[in-house]
Amino acid sequence: MNEPKKTVEVCFTPLLFPEKVTKESYIVVIVDILRATTSICAAFENNVKKIIPVPDYEKARQYKEKGYIVASEKEGKVMDFADFGNSPFNFLKKEVREKTIAYCTTNGTKAIDMAKDCDKVVIGSFLNLTALSNWLKNQNKNVVILCAGWKNKFNLEDSIFAGALAEKLLSDKNFISHCDSAMAAIDLWNISKNNLLKYIEKASHRHRLKKLVLDDVLEYSFTPNSSEVIPVYKNNAIVNIN
Amino acid sequence: MNEPKKTVEVCFTPLLFPEKVTKESYIVVIVDILRATTSICAAFENNVKKIIPVPDYEKARQYKEKGYIVASEKEGKVMDFADFGNSPFNFLKKEVREKTIAYCTTNGTKAIDMAKDCDKVVIGSFLNLTALSNWLKNQNKNVVILCAGWKNKFNLEDSIFAGALAEKLLSDKNFISHCDSAMAAIDLWNISKNNLLKYIEKASHRHRLKKLVLDDVLEYSFTPNSSEVIPVYKNNAIVNIN
Repeated sequence: MNEPKKTVEVCFTPLLFPEKVTKESYIVVIVDILRATTSICAAFENNVKKIIPVPDYEKARQYKEKGYIVASEKEGKVMDFADFGNSPFNFLKKEVREKTIAYCTTNGTKAIDMAKDCDKVVIGSFLNLTALSNWLKNQNKNVVILCAGWKNKFNLEDSIFAGALAEKLLSDKNFISHCDSAMAAIDLWNISKNNLLKYIEKASHRHRLKKLVLDDVLEYSFTPNSSEVIPVYKNNAIVNIN
Repeated sequence: MNEPKKTVEVCFTPLLFPEKVTKESYIVVIVDILRATTSICAAFENNVKKIIPVPDYEKARQYKEKGYIVASEKEGKVMDFADFGNSPFNFLKKEVREKTIAYCTTNGTKAIDMAKDCDKVVIGSFLNLTALSNWLKNQNKNVVILCAGWKNKFNLEDSIFAGALAEKLLSDKNFISHCDSAMAAIDLWNISKNNLLKYIEKASHRHRLKKLVLDDVLEYSFTPNSSEVIPVYKNNAIVNIN
């Protein structure tokens, strides 16, 4: 008899994260393209040793007092106590190589915290799209793609990434989906994939970044497959297992 | 000076319904294509006098005891105490003309209940798409399109309707949107609009209906502009104001 197929689901925001995920056997992929999960992939590409995701700003301040390198921003602005903010370019500097970074952001690290009791939690971005898809295909588990969104709202950039990843997984006959969100995400990915930067022009978060003069990260964030990292969350920290 | 533009937002599920809506000046459009809002439009097209949306099954049973006609279903099945279920065809029968119907469903009437304290609540479906759009353009208020979804999850059929309505509103220069959900919904509508029934083949709720041998309603539910009704919720009941 054939083994039952594994399911692929997409949650467009943390508010839609299904309760069952913490009880059953799932891998949760955390997605915050602008910018936490892109930055985490960049960090491991740059040989950062470990990232400690911190769910609130008070705890992030405490990490700084303990002597950690701290990356933290709130609504696109660097926190006063932090070493730097949320741009992936900060995580590519040579000063952070082999170091541990405590990291707290508006949306991304909160989504990681929400999933922390799940069986396995992994970090996804366009940087590691194909590597992550191949790794997931070898895990033989149901997959939930959790978009961090913006303050619990749907956003386009996380959703098109979710579609890209869902489409790759469903091209493998061992995966199946009955999830309308996954179907919609795949359609949005197929509309946008030939010109991601143009498509993302209409995303509201892009406009927030532009106001903050931070949109130099866009081309980097939307270029697929520059990295083979597989950042996995375990024992309160994220490490690269690839 | 020009008057400020009115905003258009889409909520993909009741869980994403923004708190501000009950405080500020908004019109909320309730959408449950399969099948509550389609059925409500059908009812008024058939000259039903009034529909009382009932948020829970116990209250629906009490309406039956008081002598009302009661329409109620749970997950696609007619409740034992009810006169009929959720198919729009029930609401087109001559026995219900000029009558008041108490109505309780899995998703749609709960979404109406959630919005009941808002400034104005109106019922949308493909049946009254253009009529509703024209009416909304004359109201000079911000619009939130609230998809009932399926048990608080995103669904395709409500989302493509939201896209159809958002696109019509945004073709009017008095409306604007900074909402990523509205942008995504419009894209999904444009992918699907030339063959709605084929597109909806992949919606999970369609499969639930097919199992229940209820998919004779699909062609009716996805045919735009068969009706000019404007069903508005006021004082605990829905009446047609057009």
